Amino acid sequence: MNTVLLAFSGGLDTSYCARYLSVERGLVVHSVIVNTGGFSDAELQRIDERAHACGVASHVALDRTEQLYTSVLRYLIAGNILKNATYPLSVSAERVVQAIAIAEHARALGVDAIAHGSTGAGNDQVRFDVIFRILCPEIEVLTPIRDQQLSREAEIAYLTEHGVAGDWTKSAYSVNQGIWGTTIGGRETLTSNMPLAKEAWGEAAKLGTAERETIAITFEQGEPVALDGVVMSPVDVIRAIEARARPYGIGRDMHVGDTIIGIKGRVAFEAAAALVLIKAHHVLEKHTLSKWQLNLKDQLSLWYGQLLHEGLFLESAMRSIEAFYRDTQQHVSGVVNVELASERFTVLGITSPSDLMRSGFASYGEMNRAWSGADVKGFAAIAAIPSMLSRSVHGEA
Amino acid sequence: MNTVLLAFSGGLDTSYCARYLSVERGLVVHSVIVNTGGFSDAELQRIDERAHACGVASHVALDRTEQLYTSVLRYLIAGNILKNATYPLSVSAERVVQAIAIAEHARALGVDAIAHGSTGAGNDQVRFDVIFRILCPEIEVLTPIRDQQLSREAEIAYLTEHGVAGDWTKSAYSVNQGIWGTTIGGRETLTSNMPLAKEAWGEAAKLGTAERETIAITFEQGEPVALDGVVMSPVDVIRAIEARARPYGIGRDMHVGDTIIGIKGRVAFEAAAALVLIKAHHVLEKHTLSKWQLNLKDQLSLWYGQLLHEGLFLESAMRSIEAFYRDTQQHVSGVVNVELASERFTVLGITSPSDLMRSGFASYGEMNRAWSGADVKGFAAIAAIPSMLSRSVHGEA
Amino acid sequence: MNTVLLAFSGGLDTSYCARYLSVERGLVVHSVIVNTGGFSDAELQRIDERAHACGVASHVALDRTEQLYTSVLRYLIAGNILKNATYPLSVSAERVVQAIAIAEHARALGVDAIAHGSTGAGNDQVRFDVIFRILCPEIEVLTPIRDQQLSREAEIAYLTEHGVAGDWTKSAYSVNQGIWGTTIGGRETLTSNMPLAKEAWGEAAKLGTAERETIAITFEQGEPVALDGVVMSPVDVIRAIEARARPYGIGRDMHVGDTIIGIKGRVAFEAAAALVLIKAHHVLEKHTLSKWQLNLKDQLSLWYGQLLHEGLFLESAMRSIEAFYRDTQQHVSGVVNVELASERFTVLGITSPSDLMRSGFASYGEMNRAWSGADVKGFAAIAAIPSMLSRSVHGEA
Amino acid sequence: MNTVLLAFSGGLDTSYCARYLSVERGLVVHSVIVNTGGFSDAELQRIDERAHACGVASHVALDRTEQLYTSVLRYLIAGNILKNATYPLSVSAERVVQAIAIAEHARALGVDAIAHGSTGAGNDQVRFDVIFRILCPEIEVLTPIRDQQLSREAEIAYLTEHGVAGDWTKSAYSVNQGIWGTTIGGRETLTSNMPLAKEAWGEAAKLGTAERETIAITFEQGEPVALDGVVMSPVDVIRAIEARARPYGIGRDMHVGDTIIGIKGRVAFEAAAALVLIKAHHVLEKHTLSKWQLNLKDQLSLWYGQLLHEGLFLESAMRSIEAFYRDTQQHVSGVVNVELASERFTVLGITSPSDLMRSGFASYGEMNRAWSGADVKGFAAIAAIPSMLSRSVHGEA
Repeated sequence: MNTVLLAFSGGLDTSYCARYLSVERGLVVHSVIVNTGGFSDAELQRIDERAHACGVASHVALDRTEQLYTSVLRYLIAGNILKNATYPLSVSAERVVQAIAIAEHARALGVDAIAHGSTGAGNDQVRFDVIFRILCPEIEVLTPIRDQQLSREAEIAYLTEHGVAGDWTKSAYSVNQGIWGTTIGGRETLTSNMPLAKEAWGEAAKLGTAERETIAITFEQGEPVALDGVVMSPVDVIRAIEARARPYGIGRDMHVGDTIIGIKGRVAFEAAAALVLIKAHHVLEKHTLSKWQLNLKDQLSLWYGQLLHEGLFLESAMRSIEAFYRDTQQHVSGVVNVELASERFTVLGITSPSDLMRSGFASYGEMNRAWSGADVKGFAAIAAIPSMLSRSVHGEA
Repeated sequence: MNTVLLAFSGGLDTSYCARYLSVERGLVVHSVIVNTGGFSDAELQRIDERAHACGVASHVALDRTEQLYTSVLRYLIAGNILKNATYPLSVSAERVVQAIAIAEHARALGVDAIAHGSTGAGNDQVRFDVIFRILCPEIEVLTPIRDQQLSREAEIAYLTEHGVAGDWTKSAYSVNQGIWGTTIGGRETLTSNMPLAKEAWGEAAKLGTAERETIAITFEQGEPVALDGVVMSPVDVIRAIEARARPYGIGRDMHVGDTIIGIKGRVAFEAAAALVLIKAHHVLEKHTLSKWQLNLKDQLSLWYGQLLHEGLFLESAMRSIEAFYRDTQQHVSGVVNVELASERFTVLGITSPSDLMRSGFASYGEMNRAWSGADVKGFAAIAAIPSMLSRSVHGEA
Repeated sequence: MNTVLLAFSGGLDTSYCARYLSVERGLVVHSVIVNTGGFSDAELQRIDERAHACGVASHVALDRTEQLYTSVLRYLIAGNILKNATYPLSVSAERVVQAIAIAEHARALGVDAIAHGSTGAGNDQVRFDVIFRILCPEIEVLTPIRDQQLSREAEIAYLTEHGVAGDWTKSAYSVNQGIWGTTIGGRETLTSNMPLAKEAWGEAAKLGTAERETIAITFEQGEPVALDGVVMSPVDVIRAIEARARPYGIGRDMHVGDTIIGIKGRVAFEAAAALVLIKAHHVLEKHTLSKWQLNLKDQLSLWYGQLLHEGLFLESAMRSIEAFYRDTQQHVSGVVNVELASERFTVLGITSPSDLMRSGFASYGEMNRAWSGADVKGFAAIAAIPSMLSRSVHGEA
Repeated sequence: MNTVLLAFSGGLDTSYCARYLSVERGLVVHSVIVNTGGFSDAELQRIDERAHACGVASHVALDRTEQLYTSVLRYLIAGNILKNATYPLSVSAERVVQAIAIAEHARALGVDAIAHGSTGAGNDQVRFDVIFRILCPEIEVLTPIRDQQLSREAEIAYLTEHGVAGDWTKSAYSVNQGIWGTTIGGRETLTSNMPLAKEAWGEAAKLGTAERETIAITFEQGEPVALDGVVMSPVDVIRAIEARARPYGIGRDMHVGDTIIGIKGRVAFEAAAALVLIKAHHVLEKHTLSKWQLNLKDQLSLWYGQLLHEGLFLESAMRSIEAFYRDTQQHVSGVVNVELASERFTVLGITSPSDLMRSGFASYGEMNRAWSGADVKGFAAIAAIPSMLSRSVHGEA
């Protein structure tokens, strides 16, 4: 083994890996960071500098924000997917796309190994391991942090000893940011009862104010294609909604979930655009899809979310669910008005050429030539039969 | 046919029915109203007077609030049931319990017929028809309003002619209230795009204020048994939460759903206690149930909600789902803190002896004697196999 | 109303309808029969003659066997659909395709009404009614038999009186035949305990013999495309398998099912080709699909079968399930060997370029470079965690 | 570590383990075999002798056949569970019960470790590992065969060297037998296309004969309680059916399944009693349960079977599914007649006081006072509305 591609975030763990793999394992270390919308150019620049400070042979930043949307977020919207009715799977979605990009880059570089800095305690290690095994089984996967379980102090000492200076102060919270949301872990998320400290959340200039505004999101076949009538790419719609909604503190919540490892984990997140888009899309679907489409979508979405969460995005069944989703989205087109306000949003209503409610065919609460009272009477008479039958035979219990 | 029991609300339609059935059909008319938490004593008194003004032979008000909780709401909480992730099925739940009470009362009275004032355009007619057919198939069901499709003017003229005075001015909105929520229909709900007019919502003294308060809901085996440490019946917990949360305008939303008849219907609702309780209960479950229990509950809840909505509460499969729910609730005990504020609420956290997160067994993000990094590596290696296999045979597509 | 298109089978009921609609309703009666593989040319010729004897203005026989395969059977195979693990939905599939063809023909003719001869007691009336309402809501549907509930004697008397001679002796069993199977109802199917009388089943020359033969069915992307290496259309594969398997008495069984009306109905059927194809296809899928694809297909197939059975083939969600199925069938290609013998068949094995079992990747029961014993140990350690956790907190119960 | 409990089958692998753990690891070795109906007294005697020949400190044979029925088979019958519509999960069910018995015995003995002889290639290793981790996490699990991957020759040499004589000839097929069926692996099951050689199947005196006989199975609340009217325990009913049906070669098939490890595995099995009981029970359910009960049972059974197969029997959700099943079985009582013949069986019919078909309420194909033709017309009119609506808005595609 001569060369390794290191998934590099610029933090303590991956800086340690960079030096360790080079010094102790004698490998030529290439590093890569995959941006899925969470890093600014300045941050990427700092990470690049840090990589080189750690002595990597090459470093690149790959932008896969577009890819994240096309291959995952599009379906999370189509499926209205919130894990346990709460969490938009921001991190799961990012990790999958990052792992795929890293695997492709590793193959392009022709390295012998891929290294990632995951510890042995979280979800990400599994997502990375699984996807690397599937996409590049010929490439070995190295996980120095998981294997060595060093303390922060030991890592810092090692880096200092090997000439990498840096401010390694641990931040009070670990934050992961991408276009589909920000997750925050720290003191309170290790408890079951404490809400996140105020200062741990992001900036929110309009939080607590009485300000309100209305945005209009245009969907075409289930994809967000315009904001307030301005046509833009779906990624740009997401960013634009985030820019409008996040200052209100919209989309903040805490989620307790089943980790892939099987223990429970609690995390705080803010995902203004994700929550607004999913709710807006769902309301539009309630106007444009049949009850059976809605119901079967809900059933499949339980699995799409769970398999994505568990790193099984490459499972073939996921492609079949996506085919199902695509078929359902043909008429999910229209404009959804959403009111933004401090720490909440409200879907005000929709307009759609495919709206099954405003059809001229029938209006709720009004009789109509499409059916008569006698029809409903007959319908009810037939609908009652199975239970009538059951009672007449099994008794009343 | 000599006698009829009329489901009587005191409104124009059922007042018309009372007179019509007596005068034109020559029946002895008994009337009944089933209170599921939405009527005050004063309102019930007014309805009683109206019934007698319409000339009924007898009138009773049956209170079935407790029954509503025991036979339906308990399971809506256990199943975290929000129709299409939105609506707590307030009306469906009430109608079912009302229909059952009316059927029992009809049998006790020994009447030949039951009459209800439903039109031919909504869900309730089916719920009533279906349940009467199942529970008392020997009793005929009369639906004068559905059959005759009279205008309001014609009904008023008939009542006036037959000596029933009254102020029949149509209210701008039709409101249905019970302990599981209030639904509101009117001008805007006939559109797809208009939000409900401000004045159509109920009183909400704290709406728009910066006030906040925290409540603590205690669950035992999935049932709400105390508020802020004060033990009370589940019905009283619901009422107490409603009293605390509703002034903030919490739990307001609009729902577009598939009516039993097959068209789409839009309705506004406010259901502070229902939404707070379901979210609080769901968070507690995420701490105390396994991922498979959560997942299978979600699957079953899609059907429990749909069958309830469609008036099929008496279907045997509903009892089997309830047995499933009960089994899952054994350890869903603990206290959930919820912050109430203007137009929103936030679950702050939980404490529970059954909390799977604070177990001493393991903490998220921390390594643990329960497993090693090598175990996870092995887990991931095995988890990758199906897709590795599929790729090696089917190719990369 | 001047003209009507009558779905005409040549039996007593539809012959009565032909005369009745012409004589009593004064309509110009056109008739149509839709062949989905169950009628020989001679039978169609007899039906044609009978139609003209009943005085119809025109009669056509439409062949929709190909259409039956393309729009329904293909998906019943893809979904391995047997209602309640038993019945291949032969009649449901046919009726849907027949109803669609009749609706199209009615529109082409420009008639004012469609008539069908269903009684008020079975499934077919609903399937016809529903599909006509959906596809040609502007055309009225007439159902003289359901409306009048005449006795056979009365119908015969009416026909004789109006000049239609015929042998109207009731056969002991009512038989419905198509390429996806034959159903038989009669004396025993009205009981729960009696098996069908021997003479009620079709001819089966090899039944009870010791003869055996092996057939090789080739599937391509889930569709049957060759038998014993001879390439032919899927419809011809079905016919060829039927010709080979039916003489053995293969595919006979009785099914008790929930009718659309809600009562239970029992029916005997023989469906040699359907059962052989579905089992063969399923075995091929077990070799070529992932566990998640198999599992989710099973979930969706419960609904595809139920909605088809209930006449809801035109429901949009059915198209979405079909999209799911199509995606899964990409690699369901290969040859399946099936042994035929008296009253049973056995899938002997398969060969497929997409076989996930014979992949070189791994063999069951053999260790392999794809994973180590330590990996499995790790996998099991992690898989145990949720229940370990639950026991450590909830106790052992 | 001083003492170990070895799961001992008397075969080469576990004999090797017995010596190895004693000689090389210096442990006091206790051994245990758990009989779930597959071992005769003579076989258990031979295994006992072999254990002592291998120098164990103690050996016991635990009978858990009753327990297998009570805790697993009862629910496999209630759920009509055949993995992938084929395999009755004979081995999965046995292993779970065996592992539980071993864990309990280990705790009673107070040993430091449990050893099992699984290789690294199959399902059983995971089932054992998982259940031991859950039930006795304080006890270490040793797997010498999986760890050392010795050849048969090496194991034999070791045993000979350490004084254990024996005929270690490898049988052509590995056979696993229990009351829920026999599985057979060997030459052909390593291929995808070869059927099992004739001689590999068990004895079947009546196979190929023209003999037939009818048995009558009595179920009470879903449990088999009598055969031909003779009341006996469910375990005895299973044995009695096996004795009657197996000589015909009934219940033979091959299954290709997804192993827990993720590769595909093929196995032959014969499970006469299991297949007869499940089909008989299912037919009885079709007569006594509602369509919704049947449908939801099917959905849950997909998971019950999968989790059992994967060793996750102790998962809490399994208990909740069992509660669901129990509720559904209240009226699944009656007698099912089954005809047995060479290589096939046929359910002839049922009689049951809870039969929803023979109710006096209604008969299939006959009109009835429970509904009118007009009711069905109305039912169909309403059932058509969603698709009418969808077409009127979305167009005809």
